[in-house]
Amino acid sequence: MMLLLFGCGVVANAILPKTKGTGGGASAAWLLINFGWGLGVFAGVFTAYKSGAHINPAVTVGLLANGAEEFAPGVAASIGNAAIYILAQLLGAFLGAVLCWVAYKQHFDADGDPAAKLGVFSTGPEIRNYGWNFATEVIGTFVLVFVVIMFGNTPNELGPLAVALLVVGIGASLGGPTGYAINPARDLGPRIAHAVLPIPGKGTSDWGYSWVPIAGPVVGGILAGLVAALYG
Amino acid sequence: MMLLLFGCGVVANAILPKTKGTGGGASAAWLLINFGWGLGVFAGVFTAYKSGAHINPAVTVGLLANGAEEFAPGVAASIGNAAIYILAQLLGAFLGAVLCWVAYKQHFDADGDPAAKLGVFSTGPEIRNYGWNFATEVIGTFVLVFVVIMFGNTPNELGPLAVALLVVGIGASLGGPTGYAINPARDLGPRIAHAVLPIPGKGTSDWGYSWVPIAGPVVGGILAGLVAALYG
Amino acid sequence: MMLLLFGCGVVANAILPKTKGTGGGASAAWLLINFGWGLGVFAGVFTAYKSGAHINPAVTVGLLANGAEEFAPGVAASIGNAAIYILAQLLGAFLGAVLCWVAYKQHFDADGDPAAKLGVFSTGPEIRNYGWNFATEVIGTFVLVFVVIMFGNTPNELGPLAVALLVVGIGASLGGPTGYAINPARDLGPRIAHAVLPIPGKGTSDWGYSWVPIAGPVVGGILAGLVAALYG
Amino acid sequence: MMLLLFGCGVVANAILPKTKGTGGGASAAWLLINFGWGLGVFAGVFTAYKSGAHINPAVTVGLLANGAEEFAPGVAASIGNAAIYILAQLLGAFLGAVLCWVAYKQHFDADGDPAAKLGVFSTGPEIRNYGWNFATEVIGTFVLVFVVIMFGNTPNELGPLAVALLVVGIGASLGGPTGYAINPARDLGPRIAHAVLPIPGKGTSDWGYSWVPIAGPVVGGILAGLVAALYG
Repeated sequence: MMLLLFGCGVVANAILPKTKGTGGGASAAWLLINFGWGLGVFAGVFTAYKSGAHINPAVTVGLLANGAEEFAPGVAASIGNAAIYILAQLLGAFLGAVLCWVAYKQHFDADGDPAAKLGVFSTGPEIRNYGWNFATEVIGTFVLVFVVIMFGNTPNELGPLAVALLVVGIGASLGGPTGYAINPARDLGPRIAHAVLPIPGKGTSDWGYSWVPIAGPVVGGILAGLVAALYG
Repeated sequence: MMLLLFGCGVVANAILPKTKGTGGGASAAWLLINFGWGLGVFAGVFTAYKSGAHINPAVTVGLLANGAEEFAPGVAASIGNAAIYILAQLLGAFLGAVLCWVAYKQHFDADGDPAAKLGVFSTGPEIRNYGWNFATEVIGTFVLVFVVIMFGNTPNELGPLAVALLVVGIGASLGGPTGYAINPARDLGPRIAHAVLPIPGKGTSDWGYSWVPIAGPVVGGILAGLVAALYG
Repeated sequence: MMLLLFGCGVVANAILPKTKGTGGGASAAWLLINFGWGLGVFAGVFTAYKSGAHINPAVTVGLLANGAEEFAPGVAASIGNAAIYILAQLLGAFLGAVLCWVAYKQHFDADGDPAAKLGVFSTGPEIRNYGWNFATEVIGTFVLVFVVIMFGNTPNELGPLAVALLVVGIGASLGGPTGYAINPARDLGPRIAHAVLPIPGKGTSDWGYSWVPIAGPVVGGILAGLVAALYG
Repeated sequence: MMLLLFGCGVVANAILPKTKGTGGGASAAWLLINFGWGLGVFAGVFTAYKSGAHINPAVTVGLLANGAEEFAPGVAASIGNAAIYILAQLLGAFLGAVLCWVAYKQHFDADGDPAAKLGVFSTGPEIRNYGWNFATEVIGTFVLVFVVIMFGNTPNELGPLAVALLVVGIGASLGGPTGYAINPARDLGPRIAHAVLPIPGKGTSDWGYSWVPIAGPVVGGILAGLVAALYG
């Protein structure tokens, strides 16, 4: 099931109309973007080692739903600790977006499409329909959290590369319709940054859509934790 | 031999006429697709750990032909268990395709080429000739199953990444003519999904071709198992 | 924070105006370039094993700032040894650029854009503004050195692949504005080679910019070493 | 030196005129080709485990020059065994090219550029100049063999992935002028296949160039073995 979800997904992304990756040029840009995000997970997991590599609220609540005892050595998997983790994840996401804005300051200041400026920060659907967009985010996040929980059952020494590659694959295969938030902090933190930063010609922060990349990943993560507890 | 089969293959795919990857834009899309499938194998192998990571009937029958004693710890490599495995693989492939359809629902509903809609689900030849298409699938699957059996002879700690990368390579190098089913469940399960799902303007499910991506991989897998037993 | 810095960065690179990776064709070239540099780090780390894999002065001074005791077994982390290392790194970078010139001799001799000829050797900004270009280099190098110092805290057996992939990711995500020197030797050594080699129609070596990819990485590396010492 | 040779090389390939990878579309095709070859090495190394993973005469003679005692457990590193190895490598390369021809039979039969048909089998220079083409092959092969000999000095559990990625990198960075034979069997075996196979409209096998991808890699491999013996 996983194989075909990824496999059909990536072809859908590459050839169906109006996806993020359709057409040769967009496919190339999409693969670059997928590697950038995947390697961001790679760097983030190494950096966040003290927290048990928690950089995604959907994973945090998914592990809670799965019945984990600890988030990291000495850090109990409690609702209170999850709340602290999520606040920190949101703050980190906001700061990362601000640093990106500094690194690309002049390119944000250059004339450009407002939608592109928002697209650097937050996800958005190619075809807007909150119900189906929500479903897409649930499925993508389910895959992320479920497979992360499965990692421990098959020996390997990939370390953080495993989750990095998983995220490359989810982006390639399931990111075409909505841009794969699959992480509420990843979307909300930068959206706040977009709203407050002084970016010329930035346009709307699209708050109407903002609940989808929060609710979808939370539901997908909890579902994954519960299903993995039954399956595991 | 393996090196040149891959190496000449990928150049053929990139520059010969009418392949899946020919031309710069198609090459970019094809590389994206290759990574999506390879990482689908990656996620699938982790998920299917209880079965011994069996997500491909060609591998299952290939290991049987190779003389394996167990598919997984406590699961004898018998014809009866192979049949159960294959049914489960087919069911999983069907469900994965359905989930992909949900994730990309609006893009399937958008106006689009019927061939592209089928192409998301099932493989098809760029130049239709059942004999040569069959040969291409035999060769691709032989490589998959043979190299998987060889994995154990060279130390590494890549775990599921090894087979994931192998599938990226087979797709890049040998997927140009037929789209590399190299897995009967991968093709038949989604083809059934295509036939039954309510997709507007979906066109034919091309049942005339459907035996090729079943028979080719089965023959390739069995051949690989037998040759590997002699080569061992 | 790391995740979003990479993630927003790669999208900025792919879609904001005037970056190194914007547009489908440029994205494809940029991904190729990112892999070439990342795998250059891979090969370089293996080759430089006697020095403790020091191929970047920013890493060398960053580790010094971090309080490292040794650069390699038996090589004390002293200012004197750092100076020797940096001279060797600069000499190596010069020689590597010369060898590249030999390998591509006829393509340098062919009619071509002087900016492209310099671009093979040294980095340059897409939008020239020394202050912001400096900031971009500080951020990119901070990420490199900080995450390298973090590597030891999470188990894996990737060896030199970890830093290679990190550099692929920094290039994809933070290389869009200035071409990611993130290594003073990488920029200055080849710039000297550009100045002295007999390349027809080579144009200026752009010495006016040359301090940015030296000072930015040095500052970024030292900052990373200090912050990691507090965080670690 | 290694870093800059790769790094400047890949930029040269992407932006200098008349290379294999210049321009966005060609860059995408080139990256696909680089991964196909790299993963061909991956599959080939696993398959050739009995020989000690010898699939390249340049590596075999390089290890001989380096003073290796054994090619594989129980196989002495002698000139006689090297000759047997090289014959087998050549035969394997020929057979791999024939299998590729079977897999892509209809695409070879389709109308197409004779140069593309030869390009699937053998390498050729973008700017023909035997002296500089030879130099390019010497440099590329030196890097391959030298870094392979260095692998043992830095701990990792990548197994065959290390050499596969090295070949991806050499292709990206040093393959632009001549198509990176870096392996005499890789070029000569398929060139013989091109000469004898019944391919419509195939044109010349370009025997005038054929000595370059033999002599260059042999010289590069021996140099690497000797230098590594001094450096090691």
